[in-house]
Formats: sequence, C-alpha cells, structure tokens
Amino acid sequence: MSIATPGPYSLVPFVSVDDMMRLIADTGVEKMLRDLADYIEDDFKRWDSFDKTPRIAAHSDDGVIELMPTSDGLTYGFKYVNGHPLNTRDGRQTVTAFGVLADVATGYPRLLTEMTLLTAMRTAATSALAGRYLMPQGARVMAMIGNGAQSEFQCLAFKAICGIDTVRLYDIDDRATQKLARNLADGGLRIVECASSQQAIEGAQIVTTCTADKQYATILTDNMVGAGIHINAIGGDCPGKTELHPDILRRSRIFVEFPEQTRIEGEIQQLDPDHPVTELWQVFAGQAPGRQSSAEVTLFDSVGFAVEDFSALRYIRDRLKVLPYFTDLDLLADPDDPRDLYGMIRRRAEAVEV
Amino acid sequence: MSIATPGPYSLVPFVSVDDMMRLIADTGVEKMLRDLADYIEDDFKRWDSFDKTPRIAAHSDDGVIELMPTSDGLTYGFKYVNGHPLNTRDGRQTVTAFGVLADVATGYPRLLTEMTLLTAMRTAATSALAGRYLMPQGARVMAMIGNGAQSEFQCLAFKAICGIDTVRLYDIDDRATQKLARNLADGGLRIVECASSQQAIEGAQIVTTCTADKQYATILTDNMVGAGIHINAIGGDCPGKTELHPDILRRSRIFVEFPEQTRIEGEIQQLDPDHPVTELWQVFAGQAPGRQSSAEVTLFDSVGFAVEDFSALRYIRDRLKVLPYFTDLDLLADPDDPRDLYGMIRRRAEAVEV
Repeated sequence: MSIATPGPYSLVPFVSVDDMMRLIADTGVEKMLRDLADYIEDDFKRWDSFDKTPRIAAHSDDGVIELMPTSDGLTYGFKYVNGHPLNTRDGRQTVTAFGVLADVATGYPRLLTEMTLLTAMRTAATSALAGRYLMPQGARVMAMIGNGAQSEFQCLAFKAICGIDTVRLYDIDDRATQKLARNLADGGLRIVECASSQQAIEGAQIVTTCTADKQYATILTDNMVGAGIHINAIGGDCPGKTELHPDILRRSRIFVEFPEQTRIEGEIQQLDPDHPVTELWQVFAGQAPGRQSSAEVTLFDSVGFAVEDFSALRYIRDRLKVLPYFTDLDLLADPDDPRDLYGMIRRRAEAVEV
Repeated sequence: MSIATPGPYSLVPFVSVDDMMRLIADTGVEKMLRDLADYIEDDFKRWDSFDKTPRIAAHSDDGVIELMPTSDGLTYGFKYVNGHPLNTRDGRQTVTAFGVLADVATGYPRLLTEMTLLTAMRTAATSALAGRYLMPQGARVMAMIGNGAQSEFQCLAFKAICGIDTVRLYDIDDRATQKLARNLADGGLRIVECASSQQAIEGAQIVTTCTADKQYATILTDNMVGAGIHINAIGGDCPGKTELHPDILRRSRIFVEFPEQTRIEGEIQQLDPDHPVTELWQVFAGQAPGRQSSAEVTLFDSVGFAVEDFSALRYIRDRLKVLPYFTDLDLLADPDDPRDLYGMIRRRAEAVEV
C-alpha cells in the first residue's frame, strides 16, 4: 500500500546486536580495535572542534542512566548508556548502550546502533591508545585485575595496539578468570592466572583495573605500585565508585579525557578539585608530554567520554559502506508536504478503512 | 540459527511511524488527545516525583538538537528532538523526534518509539489542558495564527478538551491556511479563514500562536490583545525565538511548565529573570489559581517539557497492550553469561564460519 511506504527522509539505518556481531567478526576484533583507536585519536587531535559537556546522569540506588552528547558542528552524536553493577545477578549486562548519529544541518538522525558491544570495543581502544603514549618503553606484560565483560577487550586492545605479549589475570571470582583465560586461549597472548592482585602485578609494566562495585574500593594499595608502572583504571566511573587508594593518585601523573567530567566520576574525585591533570588530547596532539621517564608512575583515569562514542559511531557509519549490516527503520515522519503531518495520519486512517 | 537468536532481555519494542499512525487512527485523534491530557495532568500533579532538568540543547546556525530526560524513580524517559525552521524548504519536518522509556532499576530500555507524531499530539494536549484551566468561561472561539504542522492538532485538542466550536485561521502563507482548513473541513469545527492576525483574533477568547521563525518576531502586538483573552504561545521555544511583544507579557499572568527551562527558551526570555510566573503543575494540583477574573489576560508560555514526553511515552506503553503496533528490535546484547560479552561475539563469528 503506497500510502504507508516510508518517504525518502523517513528511514534511519539500524545496526542490531546481531549486525554488530557480524561486523566485528568480519572485521576481526584486533583490526577493529586498531581502527577505533585511529578514529578516536583523530577526533581527540581536533578536540576544539567539539561541543563538550559532562554526561547527563540520572542516578538511582541501583545504578545510573546517562546521556552522552557531543557535536563537531557538522555531525551530532549521543549515546544512551546505563551502569548497574547488580544487573549480572539476574543475567543482565552491567552496561548496555545504544547511540545515534545525526546531521547538525537538519537535525535528522542518520544512524541508530546498538552500542553495548561497541562501547566495550571503544573503551578498550581508548585505554590502549592512551597506553601507547604512557606505558614504559618495551612494556610486554599487563596485569588484568577484574575479569568481567570488559576484560577480553582490554587484553586484546593492549596486544593489538601496544604490543603486549603476556597478561596476568586476577578476579575475586575464579570463574571470571577462567572465562577470560578460556576466551583468550587461542588469542596469541601468554596467560598467567593469579591468586591475588599482588601476584598479578608482579613483573607487569601495565596494570589495568576493571572492577564494577558501586562503592569506594581499593583494588590497588600504594605499596603494590612500583616505579615505572602505567595504571589503566577503568572501573571507577561514577560518584562514589573508585578503585585506587588516593596515595597512588598522589604520586602518579594523571591523564584524563575531559576534566570537568572526570573530577565528578573518576579516581580523582578523591583528590582536591584543582589537583593537576593532563588531558589526553593534549598528549595525542603533541601539546603535552606523555611519559617523561622510566621511573614515573602514569595513570589513565578512564571514565569514558562522549567524543569516544562519536568516533565509534563515525567508524560504524563508514564501515557500513563496506559491510552493510543494517536494516532501515521507519523512524521519522515524512509527509509529502512537511506542514501536513496531520494529513499523513488521516490518509493512513482512510487507507485502513478501505 | 539458534546462536544468533536474541535472548530474553535483548528485545525492545519499537513503534515505527506507520505503527504510530495506525495507533492514532485506531484510537481516534480526539480521544487520544484527551487521553494524553489525562496522562500529562496526572504526572504534573505528582511534579515532585520527577527528576527535572532543562533539556540539553546543541544549538547551530540552522536549528537545535535537544535531549529531554526525566525520571520518576521507577521509570526513566528521554526524547531526542530537533527544531530546524528551514527544513521545510527541502521537504523535511521542522521538528522530528523519537524517544525511549527505560527501567530505572536495571537501566534497560523497554520502549523505543517515533515521537514526531507523538510530540505533535502531546504538545497540543498540553496546550488544551492548560487552556481548560486558563481560558475564560464559555470560550468557544480560537484564533489559530500559524497554520503549519502543529496547527491541526491544536485546533482538535481545544475542541476535544476545551469545547471550542470555531477556529479563525491566519498564516502569512495562504497555502498553509488552505491546508489546515481542508484538513479540518469534516472535523466538526466552524472554520473562518482570515486575512491578518488582527482579523483572526476578532471575537476570539483564545489565541494560539504557532509560528516557526528562528528569530525575535512579533506575531501579536500589545494593542491587538483585549481583556479576558487566553494566549497559548507555542512557537517561541528556543533562545532568540519569540512571538509576542514584551508589553503583552507584562500585562498577562504567565503560566509555564518548568521555569528554569522557560526562562531560557520561552517568551519570558524577554523579561527580567525574576519576573513572576506560575507553574502549571501548581494549577493542576490546586496549589495556585488558574484564571482569576474574566478580564484577566492569561498566557501559557509553552516550550515543551520532558515530563510531557514521559507521560506520552507512558501512554504509548500502556496502549500497546491493547493495540500491539510494534516490532521487537534486537537492541541489547544479551549473552548467556553476562560477563561473557566477548564470548558471544566469538561464537557468532564461529557460526558464520560454519
């Protein structure tokens, strides 16, 4: 029935979870992590192009729902994402997400995509990209503390982007470590399962913490962190949720995505609001040094920022030209005469009656 | 292939434009406007239950893209909406929108729906609901100035909810007026096409202004507004976009949705930031008077607020139980083991290879 056929502006490409799995599988996880890191690096290098705001968070006892918008003046992107640490108890994800790209000139959405998988990928790509600038030269061994849904992506991103060859795994739940070890078994990394955080960090030049409790936790204490380490702290990402003892922060050079947001959500919420930090984009753009000595302790206080999602959405949009894993959604009303929205409804009603 | 079958938590009901047209047609426009007004009134009466924030706007030369979130502690809702006055030049809508309801307890989205049509409906329902409290007793005639995409909905909402029987139409573009008159021809309203705003407001007890220029405009001047009129000002809804001469505002009692947002976007952006206004919810809840005399000029300075969208989303969610016009979208990654997101991708890749 022609009257119900969506018009030319009404359709928005939609990438489902299954589409995204196929896109990742066809691209290859490690290649896609490298590609995403390139897109993120490119966007961070043009940091001033973006409208930036801390994400808009709706906190509740159980977790948080956030909207993360940004725009470069031509393209607008936003992500919906939740964080609910207790979700895994009944089989749900701690973090789920979806996102949209839109044209700034018309306000019309141009892409709707699942972002649970994509967020996992971009988070790991951002960590490893930061790691490439901050880790000690020749780093080959990473401790991976917290072996949940994000851990495989972190290990593979540091392999693909930083060249590590060994991961030392620890989680308070053995089964999580076994799952991670199993998933990485044929991934080209040497895997060492450890009995404690302390054991995991032995001989590691990079320490990634990725735990999900919504509380002030101390995954690492000061005496565990030796000179020259790069710490990649992923798990602390909302008010009241941190992983590191503040003494570690005080002797680290701290790198952040967007200070206005990280001071609310990151490890540095434990420090004075004017504690010096370096913005990652400045390092990527050559405007601030990364690691300055082999003895320095560097810390990437990762919380995730809207520009990373923008980069990931941009990547998916480009990738769909090669791998058209999407369906068109009839999301936007598109009457023949744009002022005749009501007439469109009426004609649809008449078509039903006939 | 069972491996790609979405799990129980992965599917989100999606209401397309065509679904929404069928839902509106089956329900009937006027009944749905009345229903929406009831949902909005109920939510406004429990105003304190909601987390409220001015919408998050990304302004550009051509328009604005906004995110409008709110939550009542159990359910979270947000709308994506744009406003681009020049869009009609190439056949696009000035305003398009979509929205999401989610569970606060898990952060999982439970409904994704087109909201271009739904916004048109809820905007009109809110206007007429406010009108019911603010118009002079026995009002039967409404001037409708600006005859674009929102105008049919306004006329029908004031008929269905306030009992008007006559609309007096004016638009700077004759064709818009003819379109509106044509669409309303069999709608049970007496229709008077007018040659000017001045002519349109003759004998009208309610004046609705709904124009879309993104600039300070003066659709009504002070001398045009007689005693006892209710003005329903829809078109001014972003910084720099107003419709009324400030002198009209100064002699009106002004009613707003959410002052923090209206002072940025509404007609009252032309007034001092402490100019007194009454919040609509207070009127609905019996905490502030509506119209106080037959001579008073009342003004609803409508900009649209997130709680109205929440009510509209809640209505659609309830309505889908009776009229199941939706399809399930595979939007949320749902691995068997929630910590094994990576394993889900890997198994999908293996399934493709086989």
